[in-house]
Amino acid sequence: MLNLTLLGTGGGIPIPERYLSSMIINYRGRNILIDCGEGTQVAMREFKCGFRSLDVICITHLHGDHIFGLPGLLSTLGNSDRVKPITIIGPKGIKDVMDSFLKIVTYLPYEINIIEDPQVPLYFHIESEVLNLKDKKDLYAEELIISTLDLDHSVPCIGYSFYLTRTPEFLPEKAIMHGVAKDLWARLHKGETVITEDKVYKPEMVLGLPRDGIKLSFITDTRTIESIIDFIGDSDLFICEGTYGDNDDLDKAIKNMHMTFGEAADLAENGNVDELLLTHYGKGMEDVELFIGNAKEKFNNVILGYDGLQKQLNYK
Amino acid sequence: MLNLTLLGTGGGIPIPERYLSSMIINYRGRNILIDCGEGTQVAMREFKCGFRSLDVICITHLHGDHIFGLPGLLSTLGNSDRVKPITIIGPKGIKDVMDSFLKIVTYLPYEINIIEDPQVPLYFHIESEVLNLKDKKDLYAEELIISTLDLDHSVPCIGYSFYLTRTPEFLPEKAIMHGVAKDLWARLHKGETVITEDKVYKPEMVLGLPRDGIKLSFITDTRTIESIIDFIGDSDLFICEGTYGDNDDLDKAIKNMHMTFGEAADLAENGNVDELLLTHYGKGMEDVELFIGNAKEKFNNVILGYDGLQKQLNYK
Repeated sequence: MLNLTLLGTGGGIPIPERYLSSMIINYRGRNILIDCGEGTQVAMREFKCGFRSLDVICITHLHGDHIFGLPGLLSTLGNSDRVKPITIIGPKGIKDVMDSFLKIVTYLPYEINIIEDPQVPLYFHIESEVLNLKDKKDLYAEELIISTLDLDHSVPCIGYSFYLTRTPEFLPEKAIMHGVAKDLWARLHKGETVITEDKVYKPEMVLGLPRDGIKLSFITDTRTIESIIDFIGDSDLFICEGTYGDNDDLDKAIKNMHMTFGEAADLAENGNVDELLLTHYGKGMEDVELFIGNAKEKFNNVILGYDGLQKQLNYK
Repeated sequence: MLNLTLLGTGGGIPIPERYLSSMIINYRGRNILIDCGEGTQVAMREFKCGFRSLDVICITHLHGDHIFGLPGLLSTLGNSDRVKPITIIGPKGIKDVMDSFLKIVTYLPYEINIIEDPQVPLYFHIESEVLNLKDKKDLYAEELIISTLDLDHSVPCIGYSFYLTRTPEFLPEKAIMHGVAKDLWARLHKGETVITEDKVYKPEMVLGLPRDGIKLSFITDTRTIESIIDFIGDSDLFICEGTYGDNDDLDKAIKNMHMTFGEAADLAENGNVDELLLTHYGKGMEDVELFIGNAKEKFNNVILGYDGLQKQLNYK
C-alpha cells in the first residue's frame, strides 16, 4: 500500500491560493517527498506529514519552484532532532546546488546522501526503521523501486516512477506437493535456497507466480515526449503536470516547455495507466475545473489535483 | 508619510497560521522590505505589496527564518521584468550568504548592491523613481535615513531605525524681512546659497527651524540590551520582537536570546516611544491576546501585530 498526499499543485511562483507542486508518498510509515519549492514545509505541517518520517527527497529539476524550500525544510528537520540520514535524489547539478544550500544552513545533526542523476533503478527497503537504499533487487522481499527518466525541459529534468513490488504468495499445498519439510517453509518463503544432504530446495517450490506491484509515476516539468509513454506504462496512478488547461495555450506550453491538460491525458491514454492526476497548474489558471473536459476527451479517468488531496493505492 | 505593512509575525519556523516575521515600509510609492523568511514573497502577494516597487531589503540576521525567502523573492523580481538595481543591507556575513544564494538563482536582469554591516547612517532619497543611496546628508531635501545597531543574538544581528526627515518650512514673511527677491525663493528653499554682486543669500533667510521627522525602529532578534534604549529613543513607532508572551518564559527568552512581551514593553517605556508594535511570536504562542497584559503593565500604548496589519505614520 502507498499513501499519497499532494502538498501543492501550483507551478512557477508561490501564491497565497496554492502551495507549489510537491507530493508525499508514505510507505509503511516512512515518507518520500517529491520536489520542495518555497513553502513546502508549511504544506507538510498543514497536511500533517511528519518531518521525522521523511527519509527520501526526490527533486525533478533545479528551478526555484521545485527546490527553494530545501534550506528551510532541512533546517526544520534538524530542529526536529532528526539524526537518521536522508537521501536526496536529483538531476545533474543537484550536488552543486546542495553545496550552496548547505553553506547557508547551520549545523544539521544528520547525514545527507545525494544521488545525482541516477541512471539505474534504485531499490529501497525499510531497514532500522528508515527507508534505505539496497545494493540490488530482491525478488522475495517487498521493496520500493525508484526509477527516473530524462524529460524535455529548459534545464535537466527527470521524471520519477515508484514501483512497490509484491512478494509471491506462499502456497502450502505447493510446498507439500514438492515434499518440503515444514521447518524449511519460512526460509524458502523469504527467498533462501536450502541445500540438504539429499536435495536442493528452492523458493519456487513454495511460492506462487510473480505478482503485480503498485506503480506510481510522476512527470513534471516537461514537454510531451515519446519516451514518457513507456516509462509510465501501466501505472496505477500517473501524476502529471498540467500547466495549461486551455487547448489554446498550446503555443505557450511549447514555448515554456510545459504541457496542456490534453497532452497529459494523451500520455495517460497511450501509457495505458489506470488513472491520471493533474497538478502543477500555471499561476494564471484560477478555476481548473473549467478545463477538465480538455483532459477527459482524451482520457476519461482523470482527477484534478488540489492541495491536500490524499489517495491510497492498494495491490490489485 | 510612511506606510507599513506587517507581512508576517511568526518567529522561528514557518507555519500555516502565520507568515514569518517581516515588514514592508512604503515611502512615496517605493518599498523597503525588512527580513525575508520562507514565504515572504507569498505574503507580499497576499497583502498587495508590489514587487516592482521594492528597492531596498534590510536583513537583521542570517538565520533561516529571516533569509530563506530571498532566493525565491529575487527570482520573482527577475520574472517581474525588474531592471533597476536593488540594495540589500545586512549584518556581517551577508555577502557570503548572497554569494551562495546567487549560485542557485538563475539569471537576474538587475544589479544587487550589498551593504554589509554598515557602521554609519545610510541616506536614501528617490532618484530616477528608485530609492537610492546618497553620498551624504542633505539638510534641505527630504530623505530616509537608515541606521543600524548591533544586537545581542546567537549570531551577528542588527536592529534598524528608519528616520524620514522633514524639510524646514518655507516662510515668505521671513524672505521678505531679509529682502530676498522673489526669483531667488525657490533656489534658497531647495537649500542653495545664492551669491549676488552685493549680497550672500542663505537658505536660512527663507526657511523656518528644523522640524521633527518620522522615526520608526525595528528590533529583532535579540536579548534586551541597554544600547537599544538610545537607539529607539523617541520613535513614533517601535516594532519589537515578542517571542514569548508569558513572563514565566523569561528563562527560555534568556536561553534562546529573545525577549518577552514585558521586556519589549520595558524598552518602549525607557526609550520614550509613542507606540509599541509587537511581532515575531514564538510558534508555541497561538493566542497572543492572552499575554497583552504583560506588555501593558510596563507600557500602555501597545499593539499586537498580526499578518497584514497596515499603519500610516505622519509628520506631527
